[in-house]
Amino acid sequence: MLTRPPSHTGHHVTRLRAGTWSEDDDVLAAEEPLEIRLVWQDASGATQRKNIAVTMRTPGDDFELAAGFLHGEGIVRHREDVVDVAYCIDEGEMQAFNIVNVTLAPGLQFDPARLERNFYTTSSCGVCGKAALENIETQGCETLPSGFSVSPDVIRSLPARLREAQAVFERTGGLHAAGLFDADGTLLSLREDVGRHNAVDKLIGESLLAGETPLTDRVLMLSGRASFELLQKALVARIQVVAAVGAPSSLAVELAESFNVTLCGFVRADGLNIYTAPERVLP
Amino acid sequence: MLTRPPSHTGHHVTRLRAGTWSEDDDVLAAEEPLEIRLVWQDASGATQRKNIAVTMRTPGDDFELAAGFLHGEGIVRHREDVVDVAYCIDEGEMQAFNIVNVTLAPGLQFDPARLERNFYTTSSCGVCGKAALENIETQGCETLPSGFSVSPDVIRSLPARLREAQAVFERTGGLHAAGLFDADGTLLSLREDVGRHNAVDKLIGESLLAGETPLTDRVLMLSGRASFELLQKALVARIQVVAAVGAPSSLAVELAESFNVTLCGFVRADGLNIYTAPERVLP
Repeated sequence: MLTRPPSHTGHHVTRLRAGTWSEDDDVLAAEEPLEIRLVWQDASGATQRKNIAVTMRTPGDDFELAAGFLHGEGIVRHREDVVDVAYCIDEGEMQAFNIVNVTLAPGLQFDPARLERNFYTTSSCGVCGKAALENIETQGCETLPSGFSVSPDVIRSLPARLREAQAVFERTGGLHAAGLFDADGTLLSLREDVGRHNAVDKLIGESLLAGETPLTDRVLMLSGRASFELLQKALVARIQVVAAVGAPSSLAVELAESFNVTLCGFVRADGLNIYTAPERVLP
Repeated sequence: MLTRPPSHTGHHVTRLRAGTWSEDDDVLAAEEPLEIRLVWQDASGATQRKNIAVTMRTPGDDFELAAGFLHGEGIVRHREDVVDVAYCIDEGEMQAFNIVNVTLAPGLQFDPARLERNFYTTSSCGVCGKAALENIETQGCETLPSGFSVSPDVIRSLPARLREAQAVFERTGGLHAAGLFDADGTLLSLREDVGRHNAVDKLIGESLLAGETPLTDRVLMLSGRASFELLQKALVARIQVVAAVGAPSSLAVELAESFNVTLCGFVRADGLNIYTAPERVLP
C-alpha cells in the first residue's frame, strides 16, 4: 500500500503564554521534497528523461505544481503540450509520491542546454537583472496589452478575502498563500504552500491543466512579498494585475514595468501602492 | 569605473491612503542575481572552476553570502578552507559585482558530483524528508551537545530587539532579517535580504570569515518562518537554539529533533512555542 505524504503533521509542543507553561499538540505544515522529471521524445524519436528540479513543498496538488513550474520556465506553454502527468510510483514506497513525471506531447522539442542557461539566468550575456529581463524576452514573452481593469476597491478587499478563504484550509499559520480572483473580486482558486513560489506554481498549473491559460482577465493576490521570480511566473501566464500584501523588490518592479504588468504592494483594506501600469487600477 | 549595485533603489509610486490618491517616491529593496563560483585545485594540481549557484539577493555582504552558502552545503568547513573571496570584475561592468569567486585552500578536494547529489537531495536513496536528513548525516553533521541554555525571557525579547535593529537599516518593509544573539540577548549581528536563506547565509558567512565558527553559544533569530533549509544552515554552523517569529515546517522540526537543535516558533513578547529540545530554554 502506497501512502501519500500528508499536507499537515502533528507534533508535541511546549507552550508559554502570559507567564504559563503548558504541553500541547500542534499542527505543522508539511514540507517534503518534490522532484519534477520531464519525459520527451528527441528529434530521432527516442524517449528522453531528465530531472528538472527538486523543490521543498507542502504535499498536495503536485501535478499542478509540476505543470505550473514547467509553464513558468517556458517549457510547457499550452494544455496540449502535456500528454501525461503521473507519480513515479515504481521507485518504491518511500518516495512514491515525491516524484512527478511530466510527459511532453510528441513532436514538442526540449533542449536541456537551454534550461541550464535559464536556471543560471544566463552565462554568456551577464549575470544581472537586466540580463534576466532580456532572457525572458528571448523566451518569447511579449509586453502585456491594455484593456483589463480592476477597481481599487476590489483590490483593497482581496487580502481579507484571501485570509477568509485561508481560514477554511489553514491550521498551521505556516503557509504562504496565492489566490486567483476575477475583476469583481470573486475568489476562483486558492493554493497554500511552505514555499511562496510553489503556491503560485500550483495556482497557475491548475489553470494550465484545465486549459484556462492564458489568464488575461485575472488578478493574482500574494500573501507575502513580490519577488522577481513570482512576477516572472505571473507574466508567463499573462496575468495583468498582481497584488501583494508585502513589498515588491526592485527587480519585480523592473520586470512589471518592462512588460506592462500592474503591480500593487502593501495592499490592505485602507490603501495600496501601485508601482507600475496604474491605469488598470485607477478609478 | 565599476559601480556596485545598490542595496536600495527608488521608484515612483501611486498611493491610495484613506480614500486619497497621491504621487510619491518609494524606496525598494534591491534584488539582483549573484553567481557563486568555486575555484580549487584538483588531485593533479590543475585549477578547476565551477559555477555553484545563482541566487537572487539584495546586493551587499556578497563575500559573506558566498562563504555562508558554501558552509551550509558542507563545501567550506573552516576559515582556513578559504584562501580568497573576490568579485570577478574582469567580466565587464554590467555584472562586475554579481559574480563572486571563492578559492579553496590548496589540498582541499572538491567533488562536483557530490554537490549535484546534495542539490538533488539525493538520487539513488530516495527523494523524501527522511533521505534529506540522512544526507545531512552523511555529510558528517553530528547531533548537537547539551550545555548551552537561554532563558525564555531572553527569547521572548528577541523579536523586538531584531525589529529595533532593523529599523536602523530598513527603509523598504521588504526584507527578511536574521539576527545572531548571545545568551544574554545582546545582538551581535543582523543581516537583511529579499531572500530569507540569503540573510542567514550572510550572517553565518560573516562569522565563518571572521574565524568565529562553530557558533555553539549563539541564538539565531529569524523574522519569518523556519524551513528545513534554514535549519540545515544553522545546524552546520552548530547553532543550538533557533527562534522564529513565524511557524516551523514539519521537516524543520524533524531536523531539529534528529540533531538536538532547540527550535522555537511563534516567538513574541508574551509567549513562544518550543518544538524540540526544550531543556535549553525552560526556566
